[in-house]
Amino acid sequence: MRHRVVIIGGGFGGLYTAQALRDADADITLIDRRNFHCFQPLLYQVATGALSAGEITAPLRHVLNRQKNTRVWLGEVAEIDVPAQQLLLRDGARIPYDSLIVAAGATHHYFGHPEWAAVAPGLKTIEDATEIRTRVLLAFERAERLNDREEQLAELTFVVVGGGPTGVELAGALGEVARDALRADFRNINPADANIFLIEGVDRVLPAFPPSLSEAAEKSLIGLGVRSRTATQVIAVDADGVTVRHQGVETRIRAKTVLWAAGVDASPLGESIARGTGIQLDSAGRVPVGPDLSVEGHPEIFVIGDMSKVVQDGRPVPGTAPAAIQEGRYVAQVIINRLGGKTTAPFRYHDKGMLATIGRRRAVGEYGPFHFTGTIAWLAWLFIHLIFIIGTHNRVLVLLKWAHAYFTLNRGARMITGTSAELANGGVSRD
Amino acid sequence: MRHRVVIIGGGFGGLYTAQALRDADADITLIDRRNFHCFQPLLYQVATGALSAGEITAPLRHVLNRQKNTRVWLGEVAEIDVPAQQLLLRDGARIPYDSLIVAAGATHHYFGHPEWAAVAPGLKTIEDATEIRTRVLLAFERAERLNDREEQLAELTFVVVGGGPTGVELAGALGEVARDALRADFRNINPADANIFLIEGVDRVLPAFPPSLSEAAEKSLIGLGVRSRTATQVIAVDADGVTVRHQGVETRIRAKTVLWAAGVDASPLGESIARGTGIQLDSAGRVPVGPDLSVEGHPEIFVIGDMSKVVQDGRPVPGTAPAAIQEGRYVAQVIINRLGGKTTAPFRYHDKGMLATIGRRRAVGEYGPFHFTGTIAWLAWLFIHLIFIIGTHNRVLVLLKWAHAYFTLNRGARMITGTSAELANGGVSRD
Repeated sequence: MRHRVVIIGGGFGGLYTAQALRDADADITLIDRRNFHCFQPLLYQVATGALSAGEITAPLRHVLNRQKNTRVWLGEVAEIDVPAQQLLLRDGARIPYDSLIVAAGATHHYFGHPEWAAVAPGLKTIEDATEIRTRVLLAFERAERLNDREEQLAELTFVVVGGGPTGVELAGALGEVARDALRADFRNINPADANIFLIEGVDRVLPAFPPSLSEAAEKSLIGLGVRSRTATQVIAVDADGVTVRHQGVETRIRAKTVLWAAGVDASPLGESIARGTGIQLDSAGRVPVGPDLSVEGHPEIFVIGDMSKVVQDGRPVPGTAPAAIQEGRYVAQVIINRLGGKTTAPFRYHDKGMLATIGRRRAVGEYGPFHFTGTIAWLAWLFIHLIFIIGTHNRVLVLLKWAHAYFTLNRGARMITGTSAELANGGVSRD
Repeated sequence: MRHRVVIIGGGFGGLYTAQALRDADADITLIDRRNFHCFQPLLYQVATGALSAGEITAPLRHVLNRQKNTRVWLGEVAEIDVPAQQLLLRDGARIPYDSLIVAAGATHHYFGHPEWAAVAPGLKTIEDATEIRTRVLLAFERAERLNDREEQLAELTFVVVGGGPTGVELAGALGEVARDALRADFRNINPADANIFLIEGVDRVLPAFPPSLSEAAEKSLIGLGVRSRTATQVIAVDADGVTVRHQGVETRIRAKTVLWAAGVDASPLGESIARGTGIQLDSAGRVPVGPDLSVEGHPEIFVIGDMSKVVQDGRPVPGTAPAAIQEGRYVAQVIINRLGGKTTAPFRYHDKGMLATIGRRRAVGEYGPFHFTGTIAWLAWLFIHLIFIIGTHNRVLVLLKWAHAYFTLNRGARMITGTSAELANGGVSRD
C-alpha cells in the first residue's frame, strides 16, 4: 500500500502542499469543510462590492483534478486520533494517515468577548464578506430613510477594529465606497458624510511595518475620510456602537456598523493535537513546531500556516499567505525526501517583503531596506495579488474589474443578500 | 406639487417604466424589496455555476442615479390603500401616489402543495440560484462518499419539474455540468452517470413553441443525457424523490435533488388591489387590466408584467421579459401624455418571437413564420441576452465567461455556500 498523506485545509498552506506532491508516489487526500479555495487577501474587496465571490474562489476539485494521486474530501475534521493515526470526521467517517499536514488556519479573536462576534463580524469567509457588504449597504439605505440627524449620523458611522493590513484595507475601501461608488446614488443623504473610524491598540496603524510607512498609510487614510484612532483599546461593543479607551479616557462612538479585523485565534484543531501529543499551545492557540515543521515526538504530523508557531532566529514567522505557501512546499519536500530515504535541511522562511493597499493608487510596501508608497506600491500590490489568484480565468476577470473600477470609480457587486437582508424591513422608523 | 409616480418592483416592467419617465415632469419613486435589478432569464446559469450573481444584477440606485426626478426606496409593500392613494410599507411607512405602477412579478405555483417548496426549490431569486447550486454540487459530493450503489444513484438523480423554457434550460445546463464541467473532478463516481429527468404535464416540452421546435429541443436534451417525461403529472414530492403519473400509471423516481420550474403565481399584492378596487383576479392571481393597462375604474393604478392579465385578440399576452418591457414603456407614455393633456392609443403587444437554449450550440427559436435550431438559434439567444443585460460592464463580463466556458467547458462559480452548506456534514453514512 502506498504512503497515505492527508492534508487538512484547502487554504494557501494545504493547497500548495497538495500541488507540490503532484509527482509523489503517495495517495494524497485533501480535506476541507468547503469545496473551494478562497483567496482571503481579497475578501475585503468582496465585502465592499468591488469583486464577486466567484472571482476569488476556485473549486478545489477543479484545481487538483489532473493530479491523479490526489482526491478531495468535503468534510469537517472533529478530532485527530494521534495514537491510531486517524482523523475522525464530523459525519462519523474515519480517515487513516501515514503523514498528516494540518493547515486549518485561524479565525478572529474577540479579546475574550465572543459575544461581540454577533455585532462585529470578522472577515474570514465568503459568507463573512457578503454579510459585511449587506450590513454596510443597509446602513446607507436606513440613513436615506431617516430624518432625525443624530440617528442618520449613527447609521453613517462605521468602526473598523484592528489596524493591521486587513483593517487598513477594509477602512480604505469603505472610504472609497462612501466617496466614490455611492456618490450619486442617494437623495436625502450625502454618502461622503460617512464617518469611518479605524481603531488600533498600539500607537500606529500597520504595526508590523516600519514607522514611516505607518505614517504614510495614516495620511492616505485621512485622504479617504478615514480617521485612525491609535493607542486606543476597545472596551465594549454592542449594536449601537463601541466604547473605546485612549490614555485612560473612555469615549463612546455611536455606530450602527462595527467590523472586526483584530486578533488571531488558531483553529480549534490545535487543541486536538495538544491532547494527542501532549504539546503545549501558545496563547493564540498555535502549535509550536520543530525545524522540519513537525510536532515534537510526532514526525508524522506537520502543522503549517496560521495554525503553527514557527520560530526563526528568535522571531516568529508571520501568519501570512507567503509564509503558508513556503511552509506547504517545504513539507511536501520533506515527505518526498523521506519516501526516498533522504533527509531535508531545516525550514527557512524567506521574507519577500510586505504590502498593504489603502485605496486607488494609495499603498505602502517594504522590500528589504526599500520602502515604497503611492502609485508604485499600489501597482506592486495589484501585480502580486493577480499572480497569486488561483486560475487564469479569475485573474483575467479580476484585472478587468479592477480596470473598470479604476476608471469609473464604480463597484458593481453591490447586492444586499442573505439573511440580514431582512433587516431592510425592520428597525426603521420614518417620521 | 409635482405629479407623484410610484412604481412597485425593479424587475423588467418597473425598471423600464422608470427609465422611460426620465424626462417626465414628475416625482418618481421606485420601491423594491431588493436593492438590485436581477436579470431573471439567466438565473439558471448562476444555479449551474456558469455565472456569478454579480454579473446578472445591477444596483437599482446606480442604474437610476443620473435620473434626478427619481428616487429608489428599499422596502416591502404590505398593502395598497386604494381610497387614500397610499402605499403602506412593511416597516410602517406610508407613501402617497398620484399614479401607481404595480410590477411586483410572480413566484412559482406548487399546484396547491406549498409544502413541496422546501424540498423542490424554484428559481426566482439570487438566493434560489445559490441554493440550487449548493444542492446540486452537494449531491455529487455525497455520491462520491457513498459505496452503496443504490444510494449513489439516488444522489446522482436530478428531477426538474416543468418543461417550459426555464425547466429546459435548467435541465440542459445540469446535463452539461455532469458531462463536462465535473468530468475529471471525482474519483469514486463518474458524474456523467447522472440521471436528469424533465417532467412536463402536457405532451411535449416547450408547449408554447411550435411542435417541430419542441421535438428539436427534446432531441438536444437527449444529447445531454436529459430524459424528458411528457404527459406526466407530479403526484407527490418529498426529500427522497417524486411520484409521477403517466397514462394512469404511477411511478416513483428516487432523487435527492428536485428542482421546480412549473406554475406561476402572481404576487400577493394582486389581492391587495382586488380588495381595494373590487376587481376579480384570475386563477393564477393576475390582475385583469384594460386597454391602457390600468385597473377598471382606477385609471391611476396600472398593473404590468407577470402580475397583469392583458388580453389581446382574445389571447393573453405571455408573462415574459419582452412583454413586461413593452408594457412598462407604454405606461410611462400614458402618464406623460396625461400630464400633457393628451390621450394614448390602446396597448399593442408586439411578438418578437421566442428563444430557448438547451446547451452549447443547442437552442430553438421562432420569429414569425421562421424557425431556427442549433448554432444559429444559440447565437441569436446569446446575442439577445447580452443586449438586455443591464450595464455594459456586466455585458463584457458575461461575454468573457461564456467564451471561456465555450472553449474549456468549465464553470468556475462552483461554490457550495449558505445555510445548506451545513448539509455537507449531515446525512452521509460511509460504509
